[in-house]
Amino acid sequence: MTSSEVVIAVDAMGGDHAPDEIVAGVAQATLESLTKVILVGDRNRIDEILLKTEHRSDQIEIVHTSEMITNEDVPKMAISQKPKASMVLAAKLCGEGKAHGLVSAGNTGAYVLAAAKHIPRIVGVRKTAIATVYPTQNAQKRKDHFALLLDIGANIHCGVEDMVQFALMGKLYASDIKGIPEPTVALLNMGKESHKGGEMLVRVYEILKKLPSVNFIGNIEGNDVMKGLADVVITEGYVGNIAMKLMEGMAETMAHLGKYAYKHRFVWMLGMMALSSGIKELKAVTDYSEYGGAPLLGFQKIVIKAHGRSKAKAITNAVKVAAKSYRDHVCEKIASEIAQFESHDYIDEIG
Amino acid sequence: MTSSEVVIAVDAMGGDHAPDEIVAGVAQATLESLTKVILVGDRNRIDEILLKTEHRSDQIEIVHTSEMITNEDVPKMAISQKPKASMVLAAKLCGEGKAHGLVSAGNTGAYVLAAAKHIPRIVGVRKTAIATVYPTQNAQKRKDHFALLLDIGANIHCGVEDMVQFALMGKLYASDIKGIPEPTVALLNMGKESHKGGEMLVRVYEILKKLPSVNFIGNIEGNDVMKGLADVVITEGYVGNIAMKLMEGMAETMAHLGKYAYKHRFVWMLGMMALSSGIKELKAVTDYSEYGGAPLLGFQKIVIKAHGRSKAKAITNAVKVAAKSYRDHVCEKIASEIAQFESHDYIDEIG
Repeated sequence: MTSSEVVIAVDAMGGDHAPDEIVAGVAQATLESLTKVILVGDRNRIDEILLKTEHRSDQIEIVHTSEMITNEDVPKMAISQKPKASMVLAAKLCGEGKAHGLVSAGNTGAYVLAAAKHIPRIVGVRKTAIATVYPTQNAQKRKDHFALLLDIGANIHCGVEDMVQFALMGKLYASDIKGIPEPTVALLNMGKESHKGGEMLVRVYEILKKLPSVNFIGNIEGNDVMKGLADVVITEGYVGNIAMKLMEGMAETMAHLGKYAYKHRFVWMLGMMALSSGIKELKAVTDYSEYGGAPLLGFQKIVIKAHGRSKAKAITNAVKVAAKSYRDHVCEKIASEIAQFESHDYIDEIG
Repeated sequence: MTSSEVVIAVDAMGGDHAPDEIVAGVAQATLESLTKVILVGDRNRIDEILLKTEHRSDQIEIVHTSEMITNEDVPKMAISQKPKASMVLAAKLCGEGKAHGLVSAGNTGAYVLAAAKHIPRIVGVRKTAIATVYPTQNAQKRKDHFALLLDIGANIHCGVEDMVQFALMGKLYASDIKGIPEPTVALLNMGKESHKGGEMLVRVYEILKKLPSVNFIGNIEGNDVMKGLADVVITEGYVGNIAMKLMEGMAETMAHLGKYAYKHRFVWMLGMMALSSGIKELKAVTDYSEYGGAPLLGFQKIVIKAHGRSKAKAITNAVKVAAKSYRDHVCEKIASEIAQFESHDYIDEIG
């Protein structure tokens, strides 16, 4: 590849609609951008799909493998028993410098392990984190009423310094995708007051409050998460995962509950009918398709986890977001911020 | 009090609408039941409200105090500096056996401490827990499509045995208020598989799976919480608090988001307008008014935390629920279940 090229490695075999929708999404990305894509997976099936899908063939390279990891695979076992799985080979290409970014819609746990195995972490980063984009009420009255929540499951529990690093990584990614210089950062907690949530969260609060590079607005409670007071919400993987999935299932549940509880009320039924198409769109907003998926932050390359249910459009966006993040030097910016924090006085307070 | 009497102590001064709505709610409870109530608070203000509110005066006793704890008070300090606060005196009456149950809509943290100070825990109970009732999609097709989530904030982090005890206490309370013999119990986790969520949750899963007295259906993820697959959902206080508040804020947010994102679409607007009264009712369903508040489980007396925003109806229901739980011997049943678990073989596995 030449110095101006952007190359993204894509796992063609991961996700509920792989390989058809993955390959179709990549094909569309080549029509909409100059990004080159290495499609990793079953060559026969990929060729078959490309044959009937418009694309720019000079922007697509295929790396063949017949192995793949499914959602049913136990991540740890899959990674050790399937070293040639499409997801693993794609990560390897990225680690070897043959691609600048990585996209997969496959098994999340295995994807985190595959990336960790082949792509070095940014120097100083203790734990990588998965971030998700979610819709908010836009309390800040911005054009882009979405916020970033991390970690949503790369880790279970986290330490003080991990959480501070999540804040640094999250604000840089949010700044890039939202195009705002000083994203607001909040800590997900069981109360607004600084003494809430136990020792770990109290110390994270203290450090973030003092860090000049983070626009920290304090603790945020569950009922404020969707208000959009913060551009970036920091939490442990275990809690973030539950919070994210609660939000995912919510639009659907509200509709069901409404029908059940108020089916005797004509006005409610009328509302539900009028809303049904809207609710579908609202649900679409809560998945990743518009925002290109959830970044795994902390690696030296851009790593994007597309939603398991991703269709072509989501994959196209994931490839474009990965390319943009590479061009905008997001990983380098994170590295610089982490290095600054490492040498910073606050580190002494962590102990 | 005679042996057949039920007496509930009520903190007249706690909550956003105290004392007016609290006293009005108690007045109504005396009209709807034979329950006696000890109202603890400012006698002049209570008398003033009773004067203009229909009630049965032989069912109401007033214990005067001019001290009270507000929502702004820091719980620990308030409890030590205001020993005669209405909430504290009410808990004391309960602890001394002058009342069978306790109701307050005041400062949650202080209420937990006040109860802990004056009401003994059930023998063997390691940690008390706050449970909340929330609406579900009713996947189990029951008349009562509500579920119980605990702990939502009496504790921050919990151990293996604490969580198992939450399951035992929660299923007994759910069984009583829902009137079903074998409520389903689930563990809130970041994945359905038994190996998910870290060591503590894995061990809780193993024990609950083996406990014959618990109808354990396994792990539940965030997106299934509102589906109603489980009657009782077990989690740590920190996580439960965030989950509960996420649900609380959701109805409101969906409405706002809908208006914002789709204001250009007439059909959506029509839907929002038709729904607006329904959404108000839906929000009402998510608060405690119909279910008499959130029980603090693990004490030897019935302790009910009414929502801070409680109006008279919620207080009436809280008094009635407390009286019913007393008559149904919920605390004794919990004590028996906890004792059985203590002497049970599974205890060895906890270590």
